Amino acid sequence: MKTIFHLDQNELPQRWYNILADLRTPLDPPLHPGTQEPLDPAELEALFPKACIEQETASDRFIDIPDPILEVYRRWRPTPLHRAVHLERLLETPARIYFKYEGASPTGSHKTNTAVAQAYYNAMEGNQRLTTETGAGQWGSALSFACQTFGLECSVFMVRISYDQKPYRKTMIRTFGAEIFASPSEQTEAGRAVLARDPDSPGSLGIAISEAIEAAMRDEATKYSLGSVLNHVLLHQTVTGLEAQKQMEMAGETPNVVIGCVGGGSNYAGIAFPFYREALERDDPTRFVAVEPHACPTLTGGEYRYDFGDTARTTPLLKMHTLGHDFVPPPIHAGGLRYHGMAPIISRLVEDGVIEPLAFSQLAVFKSAVLFARTEGIIPAPETAHAVHAAIELARECATTGEPRVLLIGFSGHGHFDMSAYTAFLNGELAPAHPTNGAFSDQRRSLFC
Amino acid sequence: MKTIFHLDQNELPQRWYNILADLRTPLDPPLHPGTQEPLDPAELEALFPKACIEQETASDRFIDIPDPILEVYRRWRPTPLHRAVHLERLLETPARIYFKYEGASPTGSHKTNTAVAQAYYNAMEGNQRLTTETGAGQWGSALSFACQTFGLECSVFMVRISYDQKPYRKTMIRTFGAEIFASPSEQTEAGRAVLARDPDSPGSLGIAISEAIEAAMRDEATKYSLGSVLNHVLLHQTVTGLEAQKQMEMAGETPNVVIGCVGGGSNYAGIAFPFYREALERDDPTRFVAVEPHACPTLTGGEYRYDFGDTARTTPLLKMHTLGHDFVPPPIHAGGLRYHGMAPIISRLVEDGVIEPLAFSQLAVFKSAVLFARTEGIIPAPETAHAVHAAIELARECATTGEPRVLLIGFSGHGHFDMSAYTAFLNGELAPAHPTNGAFSDQRRSLFC
Repeated sequence: MKTIFHLDQNELPQRWYNILADLRTPLDPPLHPGTQEPLDPAELEALFPKACIEQETASDRFIDIPDPILEVYRRWRPTPLHRAVHLERLLETPARIYFKYEGASPTGSHKTNTAVAQAYYNAMEGNQRLTTETGAGQWGSALSFACQTFGLECSVFMVRISYDQKPYRKTMIRTFGAEIFASPSEQTEAGRAVLARDPDSPGSLGIAISEAIEAAMRDEATKYSLGSVLNHVLLHQTVTGLEAQKQMEMAGETPNVVIGCVGGGSNYAGIAFPFYREALERDDPTRFVAVEPHACPTLTGGEYRYDFGDTARTTPLLKMHTLGHDFVPPPIHAGGLRYHGMAPIISRLVEDGVIEPLAFSQLAVFKSAVLFARTEGIIPAPETAHAVHAAIELARECATTGEPRVLLIGFSGHGHFDMSAYTAFLNGELAPAHPTNGAFSDQRRSLFC
Repeated sequence: MKTIFHLDQNELPQRWYNILADLRTPLDPPLHPGTQEPLDPAELEALFPKACIEQETASDRFIDIPDPILEVYRRWRPTPLHRAVHLERLLETPARIYFKYEGASPTGSHKTNTAVAQAYYNAMEGNQRLTTETGAGQWGSALSFACQTFGLECSVFMVRISYDQKPYRKTMIRTFGAEIFASPSEQTEAGRAVLARDPDSPGSLGIAISEAIEAAMRDEATKYSLGSVLNHVLLHQTVTGLEAQKQMEMAGETPNVVIGCVGGGSNYAGIAFPFYREALERDDPTRFVAVEPHACPTLTGGEYRYDFGDTARTTPLLKMHTLGHDFVPPPIHAGGLRYHGMAPIISRLVEDGVIEPLAFSQLAVFKSAVLFARTEGIIPAPETAHAVHAAIELARECATTGEPRVLLIGFSGHGHFDMSAYTAFLNGELAPAHPTNGAFSDQRRSLFC
C-alpha cells in the first residue's frame, strides 16, 4: 500500500492562493494605533516591503510566485504527503489519516515558506537587513535561513527564557548566519528600559517585538518581518495546501476534515485555504478544524474585537479573536501557540462558521504525540502535536461510529528542537497547563456533532 | 532545474546487494577470541538471530528483503537524492554534486535501515528483547524505533559522557519506548565492577558493549544487536545505494566519485557497494573515497591485521584495519567515527585498492559543514560533515582543473541532535583534534591524483 505521495518538482505550484478574493464577509480594516482610523497602507512602508503591503489587500484570486522564490522552494518542496497507516491500525479506525509534512523544510517547519518570500521581496527593494522576534525559535530559524539565501543580514531578538532554555535553536540560527540577542537586550532603548527596571527579566514576545521594530526603524535599509497573523504571511503559506490538493488527488481522496494547529494562524491557513476554495466550488461539507491549547484559548475563549498585536500597543489595531493584548499564557511547551491574538482572516472564518476551533490541554496532546511517534516514526513539534491529538480523537470517534472519514493534518513541523518538552512528559513532570481560572476544560462533546 | 529526485514507493528495491559475491579477494574468517581458530557460526547464536548469522557468509549476489521490512522502510523510503546546485554555484565549480539524504529517516540517519531488519529477524525467531550500546546516540535511536515497530523490548547502554551531554538524544530513545542506562551501570556485573573502581567513570564504547552483551546473555529470548562492522549490517544498508542508482539514472548521471564517511563502515558500504558492482560490469574508473577523522585514522593510519572488536577482548577476532583495540581517540564531535576498527569488507576493499581513504581534521570539516548548511539549508551530522568536506575539496579541485566531475555523497544524517558541536565551532572553541602524536596532517596532495 502506498503511504507517501511525492509530487515531482515540476508540479510545484506556481501561484499562491489569495483567499481575500473568496471571503463571504470582507475583512474589517486595520486601524491606526493612535488615531484609531483606518490605516493608510503607506504608513507600513517603514516596516515592510511594498510588495508585501500590496499583498495585504490584493484582490486577485491567485498571485504568481516569483521564480527566485520557486527556486529556493525547490530545495525541499514539494514536501511529502504521508498516510499514517500504522497509526490507523493501532487505533483500529476506519478513518484514513493523511498528513502534509512541513518538517521536511530546512528549518523543520512551514515557517520557511513565508520567510523566503519576505526575504526575497526585501532584497528586491534594496533592503539590506531584516529584524524579527522569535519565541520558540521556529520563526527566527526560518528567517535566518531565508536572509542567508538572499544575502540579507538578519537580527533576531529571542525571548530570554527561550534563549537560555533552547541553546540548540539558537545555534541553528547562528549556523544560518544571523546575529541573535537575548531579549530584553542592550541593543535597543526598549530593551535597556526593561533591563534598568529588571536586570533578570525573562523577556516576552511583546518586548521582543518592540525591540525588533525599534531596530528596524533605525535606518531605511532595515525592515521588520513578521512570521504569522498578517494576510501576506498567510498567502505565502498556501503553497502547502495547493501541493496537498494534488497529492490527495494522487491518493484518490477528498478530505472530510482538514485539521491544523493555530497560534497566529499561518500554518492552518496554508493547509486549509486551498481546500476551502475547493469546497466552495464543490459545495461540499468539508470540515475545517483549528486546534489551539487550552492554556491560550484565543478562538474558543477570546472575544472578536479590535485589539493590538503587541503588549506595548504600538502595532495597528486588528479585528480578531483576542484574549487581550496583556494576556500572559502559562508557560506551555507549544511556544508557537502562545499568542493572545489571531490572524484576522482566520478569525473572520470562525465568525462565519467555516472554521471550527477546538482546544486541548498539553498533557493530552503529548500523550497523542508519543503515540504518533511510536507508530509513524516522526516526533511532532509541540504545536503540531495539537493537530495530531485532534486527528486521533476524530479517528477514535470514527472507530466507534464506523464512519470511514478522510482526515488531513497540516503537519507544521518536527520536534527535534523541542525534546525538552518530551523529557518533561516522559518524566511525568508536564503540567496540564489550563489557564489559571480553570474556566476551560477538554471538550468531551462528540467531535463529529 | 530539477534538484530533488524522488523515487516512487513502488520503486523501492526489493533485494539487498551482497558484495560477498563480487569480492576479488575472499575475506579471512573471523577467529574465536579464545582458541584463535576460525569461528563456528553456531557459536554466535547466543547473540544474534540465525537469519543474520546466515547473511554473514551468504554467497547469493542479491538477498530478498522480507515484506514486513519493506513495509516499515516505506514509512520514509525511498529517501530523496538532492543535487547541491547552490553549493556548486558558491564554489564556482564545474563539478555536479549529488547527495543521497538518509536524514529523512525517523531517527535522522541511515542506521534505521539495519535496525529494522535486525529487529524483524529477531521478532520472527521469537526473541523478545534486544540490547545494544550507543555512543553518539544515532544507533540507539534507530534500534529503539525498530524494536517499538516489531513489538520487542529494547535496552540501550549509552556511554555516560554522551548520556549526560546529549539529553535530547536520550529523550528520543525513550520516546520510542526503549529503556536507557548510562554506562557503566548498576545493571550488569561489568558495569558494577567499573563503578566499584571508579564511581565517576565517563564510560566508553568498550564498556557499553560488554554491558550490552552481558545483558543479552542473561536469557534465551534476549539478543544483542550491532549497528555496523558486520557483513549483515553492511548488507542491509545497500538499500540506499540501490535507490541512489535509480535516482542517478533519473538525473541522467553516472558518478565519477562516490564519497562517504566511515566509522565502522556501514554507511559507506550502503552508498558505495551497489556502485562498485555497477562499475565492475562497466569496467568503469569510478572512484570510491571513504572519509575518516584525523583523530581516529583507522584506514589511513591503522594496520591491517586480526584484532578484537571491543576493548575487553570478548568479541571474535576480525581481520580489519585497526588502531588497536585499546586505542582511545580524542573526544571529537563525530562520535560515530570514533571506532578503532573497521568493517572487514571495507578493509579488504582498501587493501585491494578499490576504496581510497582520506582523513581530515574536525576544524576543516565543520567549516565545510556550515558552508553546506548556508547554501543547501541542511545541517549535516558531524560524521556526515566529513564526507561533505571531502566533496567540497574535490569540487574546488574541479574548479581549478575545469573538469566537470560528478560527485555523489552518501549523506548519512542530519545534525539536529548534535548542535552542541556547532555551538563549539561557532564560538571558536573547537579543537582541531589531531591525534596527540601529531603524526597525521591534512592531506594536501591533489585529490584527483
